[in-house]
Parts: sequence; structure tokens; C-alpha cells
Amino acid sequence: MPQLRKDPIIGRWVIIATERAKRPDDFKKIAEPPPPEGKECPFCEGKEHLTPPEIFSFRSPKSAANTPGWQLRVVSSIAPVLHIEGDLDRHGQGVYDVMNGIGAHEIVIESPKHIANMSDLSVEDISRTISCYIQRINDLGQDPRFKYVLIFKNYGWVAGGGHVRHTRSQLIATPVTPKRVKEKLVGAHKYFEYHERCVFCDLIKQELNDKQRIIAEIDGFIAMTPFASRFPFEVVIYPKKHACDFTTLEMPLRNDLANIMKIVLTKLKVCLNDPPYNYLVHTAPFRRPKPGYWRTIDQDFHWHIEITPRLTRVAGFEWGTGFYICPVQPEEAAKFLRETNV
Amino acid sequence: MPQLRKDPIIGRWVIIATERAKRPDDFKKIAEPPPPEGKECPFCEGKEHLTPPEIFSFRSPKSAANTPGWQLRVVSSIAPVLHIEGDLDRHGQGVYDVMNGIGAHEIVIESPKHIANMSDLSVEDISRTISCYIQRINDLGQDPRFKYVLIFKNYGWVAGGGHVRHTRSQLIATPVTPKRVKEKLVGAHKYFEYHERCVFCDLIKQELNDKQRIIAEIDGFIAMTPFASRFPFEVVIYPKKHACDFTTLEMPLRNDLANIMKIVLTKLKVCLNDPPYNYLVHTAPFRRPKPGYWRTIDQDFHWHIEITPRLTRVAGFEWGTGFYICPVQPEEAAKFLRETNV
Repeated sequence: MPQLRKDPIIGRWVIIATERAKRPDDFKKIAEPPPPEGKECPFCEGKEHLTPPEIFSFRSPKSAANTPGWQLRVVSSIAPVLHIEGDLDRHGQGVYDVMNGIGAHEIVIESPKHIANMSDLSVEDISRTISCYIQRINDLGQDPRFKYVLIFKNYGWVAGGGHVRHTRSQLIATPVTPKRVKEKLVGAHKYFEYHERCVFCDLIKQELNDKQRIIAEIDGFIAMTPFASRFPFEVVIYPKKHACDFTTLEMPLRNDLANIMKIVLTKLKVCLNDPPYNYLVHTAPFRRPKPGYWRTIDQDFHWHIEITPRLTRVAGFEWGTGFYICPVQPEEAAKFLRETNV
Repeated sequence: MPQLRKDPIIGRWVIIATERAKRPDDFKKIAEPPPPEGKECPFCEGKEHLTPPEIFSFRSPKSAANTPGWQLRVVSSIAPVLHIEGDLDRHGQGVYDVMNGIGAHEIVIESPKHIANMSDLSVEDISRTISCYIQRINDLGQDPRFKYVLIFKNYGWVAGGGHVRHTRSQLIATPVTPKRVKEKLVGAHKYFEYHERCVFCDLIKQELNDKQRIIAEIDGFIAMTPFASRFPFEVVIYPKKHACDFTTLEMPLRNDLANIMKIVLTKLKVCLNDPPYNYLVHTAPFRRPKPGYWRTIDQDFHWHIEITPRLTRVAGFEWGTGFYICPVQPEEAAKFLRETNV
């Protein structure tokens, strides 16, 4: 069973993933290129027997689970970082806090075809993926042990994407609200207390006026480079209309979101030569009765998607300070991406 | 002039390093191996003309600055991320906060010989480097614009070390207390308020009792793997005696610290096949009259050194949550390192 351990000074939780346990010899060759892809992709149609059984799928009504005939499948990770079964069993060990590594870790296979980059999927495929995210978050939200579900994607070897180049994303349900989400919730709440307005809405309004950091704008969404970008060509996608909860996104807007995601991912691919990237969805944590602290969360938080091409290395200074050094002006990055026709 | 920009939601400062500005084409080849080293190492004795003029050195009294005859030199970075001259000029831009990128960025060349890894320096060389760190922090502390000096090292290409393999460390003086340092100060302060004891002292006592995570113990210091390690084979070095300020370290203890650093770095080299690594010193920020908030800092903070071999890739989940997944049990990592004879 993996273990969750809390840093006693800054309160950061760490997953000690016992089942991925490795010996020193396993780390001796870190800088090596990825292994070759192999003949059989476990994520392609017809290879359903190579993955754990499907948890969810969009498939033709005539087809049976774990057989061909699907457009999208969700399966458990073969190397889950958290386990679905068991109790949290929170306890102390002297100055330290520990709990069992309970959670869910699922893989969303976005297409039956062996396509590497999500940018090469159709808008319909991406929209279907978004609907699946929403479905899975809502389903996992029924489990009172979980506080949060993070949706994310690792594309390319440098971005942690594995060596099989078949488009997929991941979700991990966690028993605590992640530190980085909490920081955003706290920051947005402070701004709301002072201004009685959503900081994200204010920021979107200012950016739409200013225009220099806008990459694309469509009906329901904008894509822009953040004013304080940590990484070159970092992108954030905001819904224009205030909403704290990604799962409330209605059907026509899911298509808009798929549309702007395809635009942004294609621009990154063209402009930066198919770079490795990560993206993640930051939505509000599950709001159950008596949310207490987060009582204004509906008004002060605003869900969004962060997309970060992995073009630079993070070194000692960044680890030591939490500062980031961005070697590209966000305004210039936005201009390049905006002016790249796709 | 580089610019410091603050993320309006979570309050993280980012350095927009205009002088390192790059175009999209510069990022197209990220996964490439480092360029070859070249014939002339600018950090070797006799090549002093290839660096900016020295700010500080330990050298034979007969030798002139910027000529051979030194044991250690400090020079400005040729690509400083912050500039030493100018005013902060803090101001707002709508919802955003900005200031000029004022600071210092120096390179500590730890040896006149072309040695790559600090582990191959003598204890005396490392001790001299520690004395230099202390001297530079004290000197930069005279400048009221600076709140903090971070000492760090990037060793190896993957860790941001550059392609020239000559042992050196860096320091950056910043006009704001870095977020990660602040988080530790706040966490340690909370613990002190509740327990009236230093969390680090409690932790050290528990670890010395427990022994499973200890890598090495000498007179003044212990080296251990953190209970909530983020990375495999992460190491932290603590002075056993409480002290918040690294610069108060007295001469005999500097030798002890050099000794344990050499032990740990050599164990990492032997055990993990000369891995890339970062280290950093976390000391208290400059305490000037009226420190206000940090009035108990002398009692509640405890300086330390973090050493992190760069063996795994950080991916979407880590970025999105602030959680880390560590694939090695800290107790096993400590055992391997403890039992590696050097």
C-alpha cells in the first residue's frame, strides 16, 4: 500500500509509492533516450486485452466492454500511485503525519487510433474527452474519501509521457486537497474578501482590454499567456463566464472548449516543433455539506486549464526559492502563438 | 532590465529575464544532449580573462586580482537573472504587481583545477567554499534592497549545470523573501507557537533515536533522507545544535560541515553513478531592526542544506497538485547510502 506522508514543516504531502519501488541501479541511466515504442500499442483498438478492464467507455451500443467498437476508454493505471481500496487511517509518528495512499488513478484513452498528440484529434474527439472528464469527476465525487480529482496530461518523454506515443490523459483522485489548488483557493478568496469580486474575472476583463497576452478568443473562452508566466510559452485557458466548477460545463460550451484546445495545441505544435507538454485542469474541490472555510468558493474561484510546454530545465534556484525564471516575455510568446496560423 | 512579476492569485514572483530572451526557434531542440565542452574552460586557473572581474577571492597574498594564484574566486554571472543596479520601483498594472529585477547573481568557482564534482574536492576546499558563502551573504546583507541570498549548486546537465564541467556554485540575492523559504518560516513558526519548541530540533532528536533515515552522523551534523522525501535519494543536512542563521557557523564547525558534505556527495556519486544533483542552503532571511512578523525566528527556524539528485522527471501531476510521487522508500534510500563505503 502506498503511503501519504506530510512534510512537518511546510505541510506538503508526498506519495511514497511502494509498488513502484526502485533500487539505486534503476536510476543510473537517467539521461538516456526513451526505449523504442515496441510493436504492440496497448491503447490501440483491438488490443483491449493488454490493459486493465475498462471503467468507462464511449462505444457503439452493439459492442461489448473490452472489445473493439469504442471511441474512448478509461482504464485503471497499471502502476497506480494510489490505491482505490482501504481506509485512510490517518495517524501520527512522533512529529510526522501519515495516512494510507488511498485514491484512484485512471487513464483516459482518447482515441482508438494510434495518434500521438491530442492536437491531431478532431474537435469532436476532444469534446468527447472533456465529457468523459466530467463524467469521471462526478462519479469519483460520490466517494466521500476523495477531496479532489486532478485531470492532467503528460505528452512526450521529457514531460513524463512514457514511451508509447498514443494520446491519453490521466486522472488522480486524492484524499486531501492538493497544496497548489489550496494556494489558488486561498489567494482567490483573499482577493474576493477585499474587492468582493473574482480575481480571475477581473484578470480576464483586463486581458481582453489589453490584448497583448491573448493567443485566441472564441465565444466562451480565451487562451492567453499568464502575466507572470513561469515557463516560456505557458498558456492558460479561461471560460469567460464565471464558474468555479468544471463539471458544470454545458454541452455547447464543451465544444467551444474542445475547439480552443485544438487551436492552442496545434499552435504549440507548429510554432515549437511538436514540444513535450503537460496540461492540467484546476477546478474547485468537491463541495459537500458544511464546506466551512470555502463558503464563498462559488463566487471567488474560477476553473481553468494550464498548458505548459516543457522547454527549459528547472534547476537549483527554482527549487530553492519557488521563484521561476522565464526567458521569454509573455507578450512575445503570445504574439508568436497568436500569429501562427493553424 | 529584467522584471519581477507577481502572480495575482497565489502571490508567486516570477523573473522575466529579458536579457536571456529567446525566440521560439531556440526551444525546438530541447531533448538534445549538451554541446561538447570546448577547449578553454573559463573557470580554470590561467583563464581569468574569460570571466567578469572577480568580486572576491581566496588567493596568495602576492598575486593580483584576476591573475593565477587563487584557491577560490567569485565573479558575476555572465547572464545574470537579476541586475545589481537600480531601484525596485514597485508598482501596479491593474490587477498585477511588478518591480524591477534588482538583485545579485554571482558564481563561486570552488577550485582552480578542472574538477567536475564537488565530491572530488578536499575537505579543505569545501570548507573554504563554505567560508566564502558566509562572507558573500554578509556582504550582500549590507544592501538594504536585498531580503535574502540563496546559495545553490547545479551539477550536471540535467540539473541545469551547463556544459562546462568545472565545479562551481551560485548565489542570487533577491529583493523579496522567496516563497519556499517563507513557507518554511511560516510552518516552523506555527509549530513553535503551539509547542514552544523548534520543529527541526524535535525532528532531529526523533531521527537520531529512530536511526532508519540517518545516512551519516558526525560531531556537529547529521545527514538523512527526509521522512516525506519528494525525490529518490533526497538528502538533508542539519546542524545538530539549534541555529537559524547559516552565517553564524564558526570555524571548526565549517570543517565538520565540509566533512559531512564530502561524505554525502561521494556516497551519492558512488551509489548512483555520478548523478546530476542540486543543492541549496536554506538560512533565515536578513533580520534587520523591526523584523515584526519574524520576531521568534531565532528560536523557531533552523538552517539546513537540501541535496536532491535529479533522477526522476516531474510531470503533470506534480505541477498540478504540488504533491510529489517518490518511487523509493526514504528508509531504503538511507540504508543504501549509509552502507555505501566511501
